[in-house]
Amino acid sequence: MPRPRARDLGIRIGWLRTGPNNAITDVPGVRVGHTTLIRGEGRLVRGVGPVRTGVTAVIPHDGPLYGVAVPGTVHRINGFGEVANALQVEELGVIEGPIMIGSTLNVPLIENAVITYLAERFPAMGVTSWGISPVIAETSDAWLNDMIGRHTRDEHVAAAIDQAAGGPVAEGAVGGGTGMTCFEFKGGIGTASRVISHDLAGVELTRPYTLGVLVQSNFGMRWQLRVDGVPVGEALERWNLRDEGLRGWRPDGLRDPKSSIIIVVATDAPMDQRQLTRLAVRAGAGLARTGSVHGHGSGDFVIAFSNGHVLPGIPANPERPVAFDVLPENGPLVDVFFQATVEATEEAILNSMFRAETMTGRDGHTAHAIPIEETVAIMRRFGHDAVHLPGG
Amino acid sequence: MPRPRARDLGIRIGWLRTGPNNAITDVPGVRVGHTTLIRGEGRLVRGVGPVRTGVTAVIPHDGPLYGVAVPGTVHRINGFGEVANALQVEELGVIEGPIMIGSTLNVPLIENAVITYLAERFPAMGVTSWGISPVIAETSDAWLNDMIGRHTRDEHVAAAIDQAAGGPVAEGAVGGGTGMTCFEFKGGIGTASRVISHDLAGVELTRPYTLGVLVQSNFGMRWQLRVDGVPVGEALERWNLRDEGLRGWRPDGLRDPKSSIIIVVATDAPMDQRQLTRLAVRAGAGLARTGSVHGHGSGDFVIAFSNGHVLPGIPANPERPVAFDVLPENGPLVDVFFQATVEATEEAILNSMFRAETMTGRDGHTAHAIPIEETVAIMRRFGHDAVHLPGG
Amino acid sequence: MPRPRARDLGIRIGWLRTGPNNAITDVPGVRVGHTTLIRGEGRLVRGVGPVRTGVTAVIPHDGPLYGVAVPGTVHRINGFGEVANALQVEELGVIEGPIMIGSTLNVPLIENAVITYLAERFPAMGVTSWGISPVIAETSDAWLNDMIGRHTRDEHVAAAIDQAAGGPVAEGAVGGGTGMTCFEFKGGIGTASRVISHDLAGVELTRPYTLGVLVQSNFGMRWQLRVDGVPVGEALERWNLRDEGLRGWRPDGLRDPKSSIIIVVATDAPMDQRQLTRLAVRAGAGLARTGSVHGHGSGDFVIAFSNGHVLPGIPANPERPVAFDVLPENGPLVDVFFQATVEATEEAILNSMFRAETMTGRDGHTAHAIPIEETVAIMRRFGHDAVHLPGG
Amino acid sequence: MPRPRARDLGIRIGWLRTGPNNAITDVPGVRVGHTTLIRGEGRLVRGVGPVRTGVTAVIPHDGPLYGVAVPGTVHRINGFGEVANALQVEELGVIEGPIMIGSTLNVPLIENAVITYLAERFPAMGVTSWGISPVIAETSDAWLNDMIGRHTRDEHVAAAIDQAAGGPVAEGAVGGGTGMTCFEFKGGIGTASRVISHDLAGVELTRPYTLGVLVQSNFGMRWQLRVDGVPVGEALERWNLRDEGLRGWRPDGLRDPKSSIIIVVATDAPMDQRQLTRLAVRAGAGLARTGSVHGHGSGDFVIAFSNGHVLPGIPANPERPVAFDVLPENGPLVDVFFQATVEATEEAILNSMFRAETMTGRDGHTAHAIPIEETVAIMRRFGHDAVHLPGG
Repeated sequence: MPRPRARDLGIRIGWLRTGPNNAITDVPGVRVGHTTLIRGEGRLVRGVGPVRTGVTAVIPHDGPLYGVAVPGTVHRINGFGEVANALQVEELGVIEGPIMIGSTLNVPLIENAVITYLAERFPAMGVTSWGISPVIAETSDAWLNDMIGRHTRDEHVAAAIDQAAGGPVAEGAVGGGTGMTCFEFKGGIGTASRVISHDLAGVELTRPYTLGVLVQSNFGMRWQLRVDGVPVGEALERWNLRDEGLRGWRPDGLRDPKSSIIIVVATDAPMDQRQLTRLAVRAGAGLARTGSVHGHGSGDFVIAFSNGHVLPGIPANPERPVAFDVLPENGPLVDVFFQATVEATEEAILNSMFRAETMTGRDGHTAHAIPIEETVAIMRRFGHDAVHLPGG
Repeated sequence: MPRPRARDLGIRIGWLRTGPNNAITDVPGVRVGHTTLIRGEGRLVRGVGPVRTGVTAVIPHDGPLYGVAVPGTVHRINGFGEVANALQVEELGVIEGPIMIGSTLNVPLIENAVITYLAERFPAMGVTSWGISPVIAETSDAWLNDMIGRHTRDEHVAAAIDQAAGGPVAEGAVGGGTGMTCFEFKGGIGTASRVISHDLAGVELTRPYTLGVLVQSNFGMRWQLRVDGVPVGEALERWNLRDEGLRGWRPDGLRDPKSSIIIVVATDAPMDQRQLTRLAVRAGAGLARTGSVHGHGSGDFVIAFSNGHVLPGIPANPERPVAFDVLPENGPLVDVFFQATVEATEEAILNSMFRAETMTGRDGHTAHAIPIEETVAIMRRFGHDAVHLPGG
Repeated sequence: MPRPRARDLGIRIGWLRTGPNNAITDVPGVRVGHTTLIRGEGRLVRGVGPVRTGVTAVIPHDGPLYGVAVPGTVHRINGFGEVANALQVEELGVIEGPIMIGSTLNVPLIENAVITYLAERFPAMGVTSWGISPVIAETSDAWLNDMIGRHTRDEHVAAAIDQAAGGPVAEGAVGGGTGMTCFEFKGGIGTASRVISHDLAGVELTRPYTLGVLVQSNFGMRWQLRVDGVPVGEALERWNLRDEGLRGWRPDGLRDPKSSIIIVVATDAPMDQRQLTRLAVRAGAGLARTGSVHGHGSGDFVIAFSNGHVLPGIPANPERPVAFDVLPENGPLVDVFFQATVEATEEAILNSMFRAETMTGRDGHTAHAIPIEETVAIMRRFGHDAVHLPGG
Repeated sequence: MPRPRARDLGIRIGWLRTGPNNAITDVPGVRVGHTTLIRGEGRLVRGVGPVRTGVTAVIPHDGPLYGVAVPGTVHRINGFGEVANALQVEELGVIEGPIMIGSTLNVPLIENAVITYLAERFPAMGVTSWGISPVIAETSDAWLNDMIGRHTRDEHVAAAIDQAAGGPVAEGAVGGGTGMTCFEFKGGIGTASRVISHDLAGVELTRPYTLGVLVQSNFGMRWQLRVDGVPVGEALERWNLRDEGLRGWRPDGLRDPKSSIIIVVATDAPMDQRQLTRLAVRAGAGLARTGSVHGHGSGDFVIAFSNGHVLPGIPANPERPVAFDVLPENGPLVDVFFQATVEATEEAILNSMFRAETMTGRDGHTAHAIPIEETVAIMRRFGHDAVHLPGG
C-alpha cells in the first residue's frame, strides 16, 4: 500500500481549493520528470557508491525548450547552496529551458548535460546566437549517497527531461529527492497546488488561475517539525515532555545541518519578475510554518515562474513591443495568490515526507520515513479531530 | 488587573531561555521610550481628531546619540511602507541615532523632530560635518486615528527619547502602537528576548549573549491568527467549523488590508550588517508562524542592530583600522541565534496582542482586545494543556 | 548674457539626436518646476540664514497627482544620502505623485509638504484609502546654505509643483540646485535628452521614443573633472603639469567630500521596473565619464520612470489584468536606450555646471562658476577643434 | 618584440602609484595561472575545433585551497552571463578555493574540474563536511572558438591552478582570454595595480596596502573606445569625422553584442563584503571610462576579495568570535581605495588590448590587435603629448 499524502490523512492546509492533482502540473503546460538512481549498498567508495541520487526536471511551458522564455525569478532565503544562472534570471527577468534539481556536487554535470541536450536538438544554439543559461538547483544527499562520486550522467538528465509529463507527480524518494532527508526523516520531492477562481478574489477574473508548488526537501531537525501547527516533531522525540517546564535547547539536536530546500512555484497567472519575487517571499512563509528557521547550512531557494506569457527567448529579436498583461496588484487578488503560495508550499513539504519510504544508503545510514500512525495520533491528541489513518 | 503576557498564560514559544524582563531591554544598553497620544472621541475631523497615535523610541546603545553608530540593517519583507534612511543603512552598514516608530504619515515630522532634537544638543551636526540620518519606521493607525492630521509634535518625539529606559517595557496600545490593530484585534507594541549561553551553543562563549525583539504590530486577518500553531483566529470566528469540510476562502475576510509590522531585533553579540540581515530574515519566519502571509498592503520591515561594537559615527575620522570581532558563522552558534530570533519575534507579536486593551477611536471604530478566556479554552481544546488563565 | 549650455560651446556628447529642448521635458507629459530661495548674506546664524536653497519638482506624467502611478525605480549607486520612500518603489514597481529634489535636511519637511498638498486636493487620501509615498531626494547645500535651518516651507513646495511646466528647463543655481557645488565649481540643476527613432534601432518602432535626464549635481573634486574625456579639471588646477611625471595623489584635494548627485531618468518608452533599473545603472556610467568615482560621502542615486504606461495608483482596485506593453529586450533597441542614458546623463551634468553662475553664500563661502573661456581653450588644446566660445 | 602595455606608451591612468609589477599579483599572496588552448584552423566543426579558448586561475591567498576563505563579493553590473556560486558568496560573505575564468559554456566543466581537483587533494571534502563552492566566471569566445565544443578538460583546469604564480602576469590572448575580443579588437587578460600608502590617505596606515585588478575583456563596439578619455575608437573608424556635425548613431555598429567583461579586484587591506561591494561598484566606473555602456548582451561582473583576513573555511567550526579589523570608512582613506579601483580597472582593460596579438579563429574570423602606431598618433593629436611609441 502506498504511503499517503497529507490530504489522505485529513490534513488540509489552509482554505483554498486544490487543483485536480494537487500538484504543480495542475498549472497548464507544466510537466515534471524524474530520473532515480539507486545502486549498491554498504560502505562508501568514492566514485563507486552506494548511489542514492537522481535528477528532477520541471518543464515550465509546453513550447520548445530553446528560443522561448517565461518570466521568472530565483529568490534566496538562505544562500548556503547554488542555483546555477540565477544572476542572469535576475537581470533579464526570464527563465529559459528546463529547470533541473539534483544533488549538490552534480550541478555542473547536470548543467553541462542540459547544454549538450539542447545543443544537439537546436543547432543554432551557441553559434549564431547566444547559448542558454538553464536554472539548476540542488540539495545535498551526502548522508545517504556517494555525493562526491557525482553519478548523474548526460543520459539521466536527458531521461528526466524526455519523460516529463503532466498529471500526477511521483513524490518522496524519487528524482533529485532520492537521497534527501527532511526533519531527520526521509524527505525528497513533494507537490501541491491551489486554484484562484473569480469568486474568491472579489474581482472578476477572465478565467481561474492555478498556482502550483514542487519542493525538494532536505532540511530541519526533528524537534522543529510542525504539521499544520502541531508540534509533531517534538512529540515524536519526547512525548509528554512539552509541558513539563522550560527547557534549554540542546545543541546535540543539530545532527545534520547540511540541509536545504528548493521550492519551485509555478502559475499561469500573468506575472512579471517583480510579482513572482513577491510570491517567492511567501513560499518562505509556508516553509517557516513547518518549523524551519532557515538554518545556517541550509540552501533555501525559491524558483518562481509564470507561463501566463511565453516570451521570445533571449536570442530572439522581436521587432515590436511585446504585449504583456499584468495582474492587478492593488486589490485583494494579490493576497489570494500570497495565501495560495503559503498553503501550497507547506502542503508540498508535508507530502514530500508522508510519501517517502524508509531508505538505507551509504555506510548503512538509514533515513526513516515519518511514522504515519504516531503522527495521526499526535495530530488527534492536539485537537485535529478530522485527521485519521488512511482509509480510517 | 493588567492583561497578561503570553508566558503568564503558560504559552511558551520555543525552547530557549528568556532574559530577565523577556524584553528587548534585556540587551545591555538598549532602552525604550513611548509617547502616547489619546485625545478626543467621535467623528473624524481632519487635523483635530480623535487622536489615537504616538511614537516609540528604541535607543540602540548607551553612548551619545550623535557621533556613534552600531552595525545595523533594514530588511524589507514586504515594502508597502516606509523606513526613512534605509538606503544609507544599507550602504554604510550602520545605524545612527535613535530608532523611532510611529504612524505612517507622521514619519516626516518625526524625522524632522529627531534632527531638531539632535541639532540642539550637538552643535557640530550639519555644519562642520554631515547631518544625521535616523531610522524612522511606521505602521498605519488610520482606522482608529486621525492619521492625516499628523499629530506627533517635536516635544512628543523628544519625550519618547528622553524617557527611554531599560527594564520592563510597556506593551499594547502605547507609543507608536497606540492606534494599531493586529489580526483584527487590538495590537501595538510587544517585546520578548532570548539568552544564548555557552552551554547551548556547543561552543565556548566568552559571555552569554542576549537577543531581544520589539514589534509594532498592525497586520493580519482574524482567521489567519495562530497561537503557538493553534488556529485560534479561525476558532474564534467559527468555532467547530474547522473540520466540517473543505471551504473556499472568503474575500470578505479582507477587512483591513492596510496593515503592517515593524520588527526591531537587537543583540549584544558582535555581528556585522550581513549577519544581522540573516537574523532579519528569520524574524520573518517568526512572523509567518503567527499566520501572516505578508499581505500585499503590509509594510513588513525588520530593523536589526548589534551593539556588540559601538563604532565611531559617520562624521568621525578614525585613523586606524577598527577592531571588530565577528561571531563565528560556521558552527551551531549561528543557528541558535536564528532560533532565538524566530522565537522572540513570535512571542513579541503575541505579547503585543495579549497586553493590549480594547480601544475605541475615530468614527466609533473599536478594536477589541483578543479575548483571554476564549483563547485559553481554544489552546486547551487543541491539546496545549499547560495553558491556563492568569493565576489559574 | 546667459551662460552657455554644453552644446552652445560645440561640446556634443555622443552620437544620438537630442529632443527639441534637450531637456527632460522633451519626454511628453514630464514637467519641471523650481522654487529658489536666496536670502541674506554673511555669517551663518542657524535658523536665520544665509539661505541658498530651494526645491525642484519633476512631475512624471500629465495625469492627476494622486491615484495614478508610473513604473519606476530608485537605484543606489552610493547610498550616503536619502531618497524617501525608495523601499516602497522597489516593492511595488511604481512611483506616485511628484518627484521632489531639495536640500538634505529638508527632506522630511518637503515630504510632509507634499502630503499636505495632496491631502488638501484629494480628500480621499489617507482615510478611505492609503496615503501616498512620494519620492523625495536630496543633496547637501551645507557649504553655501544654512542647511540645518531647514528653510523650505509648505508654500515653496506647493509653488514648485504648481509652476511645473514643459518646455525649456531653468538650469544651474535654481530650485533644489540653488546651493550646490560640483567638481568644486558651482553646480545644481542640469538636463539633456535623446531621441530614439526607428531608423536608429534597427527595429520598426510604432513611434519615436524620448529619454530625458535631469540632475541635481553636487559632487566631485576639481582635479577629477573630465569634459567629453578631456581632463579639464586637472588642467584648470595645474595646467601643463599633466605630463611632467607620475605624481602621488594629494589628499588635500578632498576639500568637500560631502557631495552627491541625484539623477532623474524619464522616458515615454514602455518599460517596467526591471528595465528602468537597467537604465539607471547606465546613468552611473554617464556619471563616471565626468570623473566621478562615487566618493564615499556622495549620495549618488538614480530615479528612473517610464510614463509609457500610466497605471492605476496604489489605492485603486482594478478588476482585470492591466495591459502592459514592454519594450523588446533582445534586439539592439535596448542598447540604444543604454547609450542614450549614458549620453544624456553626462551632458546634463555638464549643463548643470556651464549654466551656473558664481554664488556667494554663508560665511562668505563662494562657489565659482566654471570658467568658460579657459575650458574652451583646454578642450581645443586637447584636440576638440569644434569647441568654441559662444557665438565664436 | 612584445606588444607594449599602456604605461610603455606613456599612457598613465590617474594619479596613484602602481605596484612593482602593475599587476594583481602585487597584492601579497595573490597568484595567477593560465592554460591556453589553441588548436586547428578553418571551418567550425562542433566538438573538433578550431579551438581558441582557455582558463585562468586567480588564487586569492597563499593558504590551502580548501578549508580557508577570504571576504569576497560578486557584483552584477549587467547580468547577461553566469558567475557560478555567486549566491553563496553573497550569503556568507566569503570566497573559497580558486577563482576561475573561462569560456561561457565551459563553466560547468571548469566547476566540476575544480571539485575533482580539490576532492583528490582534500579527502574530507564532501563527506564529513560540506563540499566547496568555487567561483567560476566566463565570457563568450564563440566568435573565434568552437565554444559549444567545450574543450576545457580537467587537466587544463588543474594546470592553471598548479602553475599559478606571483610576479608578472601574462596578458592578452592567454588563459580564459584566449578567444576574446574587446571593442572589436583582440582582447583578453589584462591587469594593473595601485598602492595606497600612508602619505596619500591622510591617515596613518600601519602598512601600505595594495589593490590589484585583473580583467578578462570581451565587450564593446569599436566606435565606443576611449583611451584615457580620447575617442580613439571613433578616430580609428572615421578619422576626421568627429567634428563634422551631429551624426545619428548607426545600428550596424552592433556587430558583436555577445560581449562581456569579468573584473577581479583584490586587496590586502582588511575589508568585509559590504566594503568590497563598494569597491566593485567603482570597478564599473573604471569600465565606463573606456567607453562601455554595459551593453544588453554583456555579462559585466566584478569579483572582489580581500586577503587581509584569511578566515576559517566554511566547513570549519571555530569556537570563539573571529578578530576582524576593518578599514575605517569615514575618512578619506576609503576614497583613495575607490580612486585606485577606478584607475586600475581602466588600465587593466587597456593592457588587455595593447598586449594582445591579432588572432584568427574558427571560420576564418580574425580579431585584429589594436594598432599601436595609429593609437599613439591619435592620442598625440588629442593633446596627450607624453604618449609615445615604445622606445620612442
